[in-house]
Amino acid sequence: MRELPIHIELEQKSGKTLYEQIYEYIREEIRKGNLLQDERLPSARFLSDYLQVSRTTVDMAYGQLAAEGYLIAKPKRGYFVGDVRELYNTGMAETYAETEPFCQENAPGWRYDFSPNAIDMSQFPYATWKKITKNIMVDARSHMFALGEPQGDIELRRTICRYLHGSRGVSCDPEQVIVGAGNDFLLLLLEKILGRHIHVAMENPTYSRAYKIFRSFAYPISLIPMDDKGIRVDKLEESKAKLAYVMPSRQYPTGVSMPIGRRMELLHWADGERERYLIEDDYDSEFRYKGKPLPSLQASDRLGRVIYIGTFSKAIAPAIRVSYMVLPYPLLERYRRECGFFSSTVSRIDQTILNEFISDGYFERYLNKMRKRYRMKHDLLLGELKDLEKDFTVSGENAGLHVLLTDRKGRSEEALEKAAAEADVKVYGMSDFCMEEEQNIPATIILGYGGLSPEEIQTGISLLKKVWH
Amino acid sequence: MRELPIHIELEQKSGKTLYEQIYEYIREEIRKGNLLQDERLPSARFLSDYLQVSRTTVDMAYGQLAAEGYLIAKPKRGYFVGDVRELYNTGMAETYAETEPFCQENAPGWRYDFSPNAIDMSQFPYATWKKITKNIMVDARSHMFALGEPQGDIELRRTICRYLHGSRGVSCDPEQVIVGAGNDFLLLLLEKILGRHIHVAMENPTYSRAYKIFRSFAYPISLIPMDDKGIRVDKLEESKAKLAYVMPSRQYPTGVSMPIGRRMELLHWADGERERYLIEDDYDSEFRYKGKPLPSLQASDRLGRVIYIGTFSKAIAPAIRVSYMVLPYPLLERYRRECGFFSSTVSRIDQTILNEFISDGYFERYLNKMRKRYRMKHDLLLGELKDLEKDFTVSGENAGLHVLLTDRKGRSEEALEKAAAEADVKVYGMSDFCMEEEQNIPATIILGYGGLSPEEIQTGISLLKKVWH
Repeated sequence: MRELPIHIELEQKSGKTLYEQIYEYIREEIRKGNLLQDERLPSARFLSDYLQVSRTTVDMAYGQLAAEGYLIAKPKRGYFVGDVRELYNTGMAETYAETEPFCQENAPGWRYDFSPNAIDMSQFPYATWKKITKNIMVDARSHMFALGEPQGDIELRRTICRYLHGSRGVSCDPEQVIVGAGNDFLLLLLEKILGRHIHVAMENPTYSRAYKIFRSFAYPISLIPMDDKGIRVDKLEESKAKLAYVMPSRQYPTGVSMPIGRRMELLHWADGERERYLIEDDYDSEFRYKGKPLPSLQASDRLGRVIYIGTFSKAIAPAIRVSYMVLPYPLLERYRRECGFFSSTVSRIDQTILNEFISDGYFERYLNKMRKRYRMKHDLLLGELKDLEKDFTVSGENAGLHVLLTDRKGRSEEALEKAAAEADVKVYGMSDFCMEEEQNIPATIILGYGGLSPEEIQTGISLLKKVWH
Repeated sequence: MRELPIHIELEQKSGKTLYEQIYEYIREEIRKGNLLQDERLPSARFLSDYLQVSRTTVDMAYGQLAAEGYLIAKPKRGYFVGDVRELYNTGMAETYAETEPFCQENAPGWRYDFSPNAIDMSQFPYATWKKITKNIMVDARSHMFALGEPQGDIELRRTICRYLHGSRGVSCDPEQVIVGAGNDFLLLLLEKILGRHIHVAMENPTYSRAYKIFRSFAYPISLIPMDDKGIRVDKLEESKAKLAYVMPSRQYPTGVSMPIGRRMELLHWADGERERYLIEDDYDSEFRYKGKPLPSLQASDRLGRVIYIGTFSKAIAPAIRVSYMVLPYPLLERYRRECGFFSSTVSRIDQTILNEFISDGYFERYLNKMRKRYRMKHDLLLGELKDLEKDFTVSGENAGLHVLLTDRKGRSEEALEKAAAEADVKVYGMSDFCMEEEQNIPATIILGYGGLSPEEIQTGISLLKKVWH
């Protein structure tokens, strides 16, 4: 690697953030041909040291440049200049591209990233998936290449019903199931079904993508505090919400599992007025390591108030862009009237592969394997955390793919995150999930372990012990 | 096939449509077990004769029952009772399912269906597609199963840019391209980018799905009349529209190709005020049989006013749920701010397959083949229509997958459609595409030929000649 011309003169008061300055400098160097295709950039760590800026700043700039094709990220090797011949250097690009670039949620490059969203793909039955794909392609006739039904293929909807009934107690007909390319798309459809200006209540803290999506609908949002049983229904009653987005099986990120009593209160709230609905996001109900999981909230719903949403992206693979929504009958009717014409977003080929993967039992087997594997990582992590228990309270364990550490010593999340970052360990502060400023809550760190190997968990935690001593 | 218990007593004045009565009767027979799994239903033709109702009525009832899983349609064999053990017969299903069911746009079962949406899949290089899929699956490592970038994989976006630049003169950077699972999804995103209450202008007649989608956004819609050069920009100026949805290459369904002068007027309109945009839907620009196609409208756009939308569903296969949108820079910035968090709706595996299909030259070869094949059908159809030219004016030829027949003898579209239906031929009246009642326009019939074999075109037209003599 030759010495690179990264002579950025950062101006603290330029009106541009440091990140923007780095981003623009490198982009210009590439555009001018000072950085050539396939040339390797200095590591983010090196550059952040060299420029005396935070690692995150450099990660964001590199991430953005990669998103735009200026750089190519190669796993474990770093960033290289991309093939920019096609990045036509038009005048307009110059004028407009200097604006708020988009922020990658998981910037690449941390040595130990305790992301709560990462999953373990090491055990994925690639061979099986390939075999099913191959067989389907052998049999594939033209109907497979035709546009499927807007709601999804009936065979897959039947399989989903059977799976949800068996594993989550969800009671539904295949006609109630809508298959779509990811939860975000299903929420976009749901907006069309529910209509405008729906006042929505969310747990606080909550899943920030869902929050952003509701905000993009311009829905008024009430953030409802939680206690150890989940969302506080008394506070929900006080809000003017008609819709509540909840995660009763295991709330994200707090890990709270809602007991039956609170569920009944919640359903009672929904039944209390016409046109009140609950969205149950059952995002990772598959992973539970202790005790029997409660069935879904939808299972207890007598009056058709629960909209049940789930996904295969977490339990199978993020690339499997298949989510499902179970609509109660009153909304199903509205879906057909208002949205029945929206074409399916999942190809029939993908639906067929997924259907065989589930109905031939591979999914169940894979889940059992992953449950074991995640439990092993969970137990290992909890063991490693023992030494930290005098400084932190551990919660949210026994299910899902992350635990929470609540500080007992009055330190700030920022300080804890920063100390971790210096050891090249990325941890996530709870305040990222709080959609409003919360006062006086103790610093809480979220440690996701799904995507890390056992060795990475051990080393990562031992580094944290050192910097958080 | 044993004689089936289809003893429906239709009541003309029951408050329920005939279609609903047939639908409900058969559903009840299946639920009660009077019709058993795998039992074959009478053909739609037979039942419509027997009950003395229109073929469409029976088609709609069968189509709805199939959509809900009560029936299974087997190509060329008819409808059979599905496996209904999973259709849990809950009380609620009874109460709510009797409501407006959803209407299948292309009910199956016509002997000769001149649908303008049907395409010919007989020449599709299944073997090549399978080979690419297989190779990709062999190489597939975990990164292929990861969630891709929200805008789509950079390699595919580069390939799309290159293709659009070469074939349509579209000038864009890969960073301007958003890949999504179908045009409908991209329009949903666009609503989030453009915002609420955007007054949209559409050509009249137009593509009805786009109209329904804008209506579902609650956008005020102005329908703008057309002349032989396309949308009337003088009338557009009179409207209060900020956004116009147009199909300049070949308007759907009129087949009008917008000349350069009108395009300039249209761009001038957009440039006339801040925040005016044009959506260019270039839905079937690939098929042109005579003359050189004009480049896209986007190619002439100097100020970033054109949002260019296209799809691979028509040129490759409907199952390929990949559409693309090229955003002008001012909107790109807004996309990143308002929608950058919406996850990609297309799996990386599918993006990779498509990327190889295009960049290895298979797409170009397939397009050339299909252009020849569709031209052959087009020429055949025009030849067959010669005898009808005393009764009809033929227009919209030389491109796309349909032509228009405008009646010279003062007959109604309804009468022409009905006469065709009696010969088991489905044709489509222009009024289906007019979003408002038009007065005094002569009856116009749309004949799509993409999905019919040469023999079917010949026989279908000879039947039409008989019934329309």
